[in-house]
Amino acid sequence: MTDHLRIFDTTLRDGEQSPGISLDVAEKLEVAEQLARLGVDIIEAGFPIASIGDFEAVEAVAAGVRGPVITALSRTGFEDIDRAWEAVRHAERPRIHVFIATSPIHMKKKLRMTEDQVRAEVVAGVGRARSYCEDVEFSPEDGSRSDVDFMCDVLQAAVDQGATTLNIPDTVGYGVPEEFGALIAHILEAVRGDFVVSTHCHNDLGLAVANSLAGVRAGARQVECAINGLGERAGNAALEEIVMAVRTRPDYFGDVETSVRTEELARTSRVVSRLTGYPVQYNKAVVGRNAFAHEAGIHQHGVLEDRETYEIIEASTVGQEAAQIVLGKHSGRHAFADTLEKMGLRLQGDALNQAFVRFKELADRKVQLTEADLEAIVAEELGTAAVHRYAIASLDVHGGTQATPSATVVLTDGDTKVEGHGEGNGMIDAAIAAISEATGVHGSVVDFKVSSVTGGGDALGDVVIQLAVDSHKASGRGLATDVVEASARAYLNAVNKLVRLRDARPRERTVGP
Amino acid sequence: MTDHLRIFDTTLRDGEQSPGISLDVAEKLEVAEQLARLGVDIIEAGFPIASIGDFEAVEAVAAGVRGPVITALSRTGFEDIDRAWEAVRHAERPRIHVFIATSPIHMKKKLRMTEDQVRAEVVAGVGRARSYCEDVEFSPEDGSRSDVDFMCDVLQAAVDQGATTLNIPDTVGYGVPEEFGALIAHILEAVRGDFVVSTHCHNDLGLAVANSLAGVRAGARQVECAINGLGERAGNAALEEIVMAVRTRPDYFGDVETSVRTEELARTSRVVSRLTGYPVQYNKAVVGRNAFAHEAGIHQHGVLEDRETYEIIEASTVGQEAAQIVLGKHSGRHAFADTLEKMGLRLQGDALNQAFVRFKELADRKVQLTEADLEAIVAEELGTAAVHRYAIASLDVHGGTQATPSATVVLTDGDTKVEGHGEGNGMIDAAIAAISEATGVHGSVVDFKVSSVTGGGDALGDVVIQLAVDSHKASGRGLATDVVEASARAYLNAVNKLVRLRDARPRERTVGP
Repeated sequence: MTDHLRIFDTTLRDGEQSPGISLDVAEKLEVAEQLARLGVDIIEAGFPIASIGDFEAVEAVAAGVRGPVITALSRTGFEDIDRAWEAVRHAERPRIHVFIATSPIHMKKKLRMTEDQVRAEVVAGVGRARSYCEDVEFSPEDGSRSDVDFMCDVLQAAVDQGATTLNIPDTVGYGVPEEFGALIAHILEAVRGDFVVSTHCHNDLGLAVANSLAGVRAGARQVECAINGLGERAGNAALEEIVMAVRTRPDYFGDVETSVRTEELARTSRVVSRLTGYPVQYNKAVVGRNAFAHEAGIHQHGVLEDRETYEIIEASTVGQEAAQIVLGKHSGRHAFADTLEKMGLRLQGDALNQAFVRFKELADRKVQLTEADLEAIVAEELGTAAVHRYAIASLDVHGGTQATPSATVVLTDGDTKVEGHGEGNGMIDAAIAAISEATGVHGSVVDFKVSSVTGGGDALGDVVIQLAVDSHKASGRGLATDVVEASARAYLNAVNKLVRLRDARPRERTVGP
Repeated sequence: MTDHLRIFDTTLRDGEQSPGISLDVAEKLEVAEQLARLGVDIIEAGFPIASIGDFEAVEAVAAGVRGPVITALSRTGFEDIDRAWEAVRHAERPRIHVFIATSPIHMKKKLRMTEDQVRAEVVAGVGRARSYCEDVEFSPEDGSRSDVDFMCDVLQAAVDQGATTLNIPDTVGYGVPEEFGALIAHILEAVRGDFVVSTHCHNDLGLAVANSLAGVRAGARQVECAINGLGERAGNAALEEIVMAVRTRPDYFGDVETSVRTEELARTSRVVSRLTGYPVQYNKAVVGRNAFAHEAGIHQHGVLEDRETYEIIEASTVGQEAAQIVLGKHSGRHAFADTLEKMGLRLQGDALNQAFVRFKELADRKVQLTEADLEAIVAEELGTAAVHRYAIASLDVHGGTQATPSATVVLTDGDTKVEGHGEGNGMIDAAIAAISEATGVHGSVVDFKVSSVTGGGDALGDVVIQLAVDSHKASGRGLATDVVEASARAYLNAVNKLVRLRDARPRERTVGP
């Protein structure tokens, strides 16, 4: 047992299971690269058996991202495990994460298995995983509602088959710190062998971080968590809170340390928020825009005298500083590529060209672009993936309180041009109707989100639209100084994605711990 | 000591101190009335000495809201206490909440007082408060970083002077549950007398809820908390999480019970989010839109078999149900007023008339309106308060990728009409420029937020704009099926407010525990 606390990030697996989030391979890679820069120990990249998209994303992360251990989730069945291994085998350091439920309600209602059957599954599954890979993690799903003796029995079987990490999920967020800490302590005492104990806590009662930290105090040396606390329902423990709690209270957590570069926390939070389309609450701890709000111009006598009167973390420690202006309309292609490089954002070939074109279009209308603006431009490019079928040649919209809002759009479709006209309840509606007419794709907008990239009046509008056509869903992102134009771009990007995805196998929504 | 856990809501005091939140009297009353419906025990309505606006709001809540105890915050100085009493004296059950810092860093850097001076302040301040009112609460600010013996000494002095509640703040969110619980237990042992111990925990490390609950386990019988976890920096403990944790785990919290009507939690969260302009994270526990996301169409094998496989709270328990359609374009004035009444929303006279006009305008464009839409209409009316100087007679906007976005607006100003024309980077910009020209008020937009009232493509756009002119700030809200029109309305509402507020005394930002 060491005092290094392993940070296991499951943003790409449990986080990506959240409704409305659907990252494509390029987006997952972008998140994984940022997680590697952040310095997490393990990245759970997906659940390969769940869909071809999941498989491809895990494979791409395993092949492309260096630094962290890359792991894939798997049920105990051999087909699952084989598929997980196939996806992660090219990682520098692969791990297979096997799970099966051990609580009475899950065994009875979901698995329809007896305790003996579940134990046999664990023996077979962990054994199979271990035959591929030295690094195997096992999770008894719904651990906090399981019979403790049976769960320890199963955990012992997993260790005996070669599992090196035992992860204890509070799948439904039912735990309270005192109890959950005691459970971890009990497991460390009852199970024999050489393994690391891990926590995986859900936030249904707002206690995910506290439960995880109680686990750490009791001896857990891996915490499963996600950026911005993403995850099923109310989400997982927030990575940024876990890391900063351990760092801020060394007097309480002793020699426990993480390898996270905390100054990357704010950017990681922004990247994940932008790509998932999930906003971060202003008053979110550590990464919310108010977490250090005195810095933003609210004068407080105490803080002016001494920062520590009201603050226990310095804003720069977590990378929360004022937006820095980095480029303007006179910046060239070289400066653009250079700045992205310095920010750790890698775009190549067509994607770089397209991003540069968008940068120039935006810089023409907005005098200065900040780091956050550039991140958004890159996100827009990622979202559209490699293939744009349609692009906007021109858009004209008219509206107000007197006339019915209307829009006319001209799109390029390869070498030809198509035109569409539409009306609606509002100008965004009208622009969408025009694009539907031009492309012949008639979807319904199931989610629509507008945010500003930075604060203030001249902020870029950043729109994320989720579009559904039959059983297919895709999301698109658009960026512009005008909110209707940004919406039209987002909608068209979603259409482009959908056209590409339509033929892929539909994704089965299988849930992990 | 009883096992009734008092819920002390500080949304209107600590929550309202958050940057960018500035509720006027009508908005504070609306929140307070919803809190009374929710069944909280105590409403902290504000900090009367801080500004005339704060004073008026506390006075209005004290005079108008029945059910909960109404309290006002106060420093130990007599002027503060007198002013607090003046504001709350007409409450059914008034309370004065006196605080002073007891931590070395606060005493030295902020107060510049010795321990003896602080103790003397407490004796004098609590005594004064008690001379007005039988219900007096005392808080040693930054309690968790105070010397325990000194703090207990001060607490004893407060009890000896007649304080009936001792509230222990973790002002900087530095506490961890085990420690904070032990602190509460120690206070209950060390201080003699008849009093209730209370917690007030901030969320800087994501532990506010866990720390509060550890306090409850140790014997605290009041929890200070806020809707959606609002408050300074990363906020306070979230009321909804505290209440649901206690309710969901009776096996752990024993006979502790709150009087909160949990089925009002979701609506209270919406009302507060809408009036403050602070979004609620999708994955927020209890009140986030994903907290029960299986209900929203994501099919999961387990949940279909048995809800409890993945859920520990039923969505209806906290009022999270699908948006109900309540009114359409054919609904008349009577049905409108009736529905608001049933929803517990009270609008009278001009405000009701204006809301009805807005309802008809919106219903003309959108076939059906849900409860959430109506809440938003009422919020728009509240936001503009009683006096509209300007109203939109007509708006015409034009934009797209080819032409410079432009707008023309005609406003009524009493009996006359004023016209303005503007151009901008986007159509919203252009509409704002047109309104600036028409009104002659040239402010800068410091915050801009667009959200949809309900999901889906035909949702109403709900825009909140915060406007600054010189040292004055005001926020306005606008609702329309078109986002540019909604923005124009929001901007104009902010202008209307600013015109009214310009002459009021500027607000001093004084911070409480």
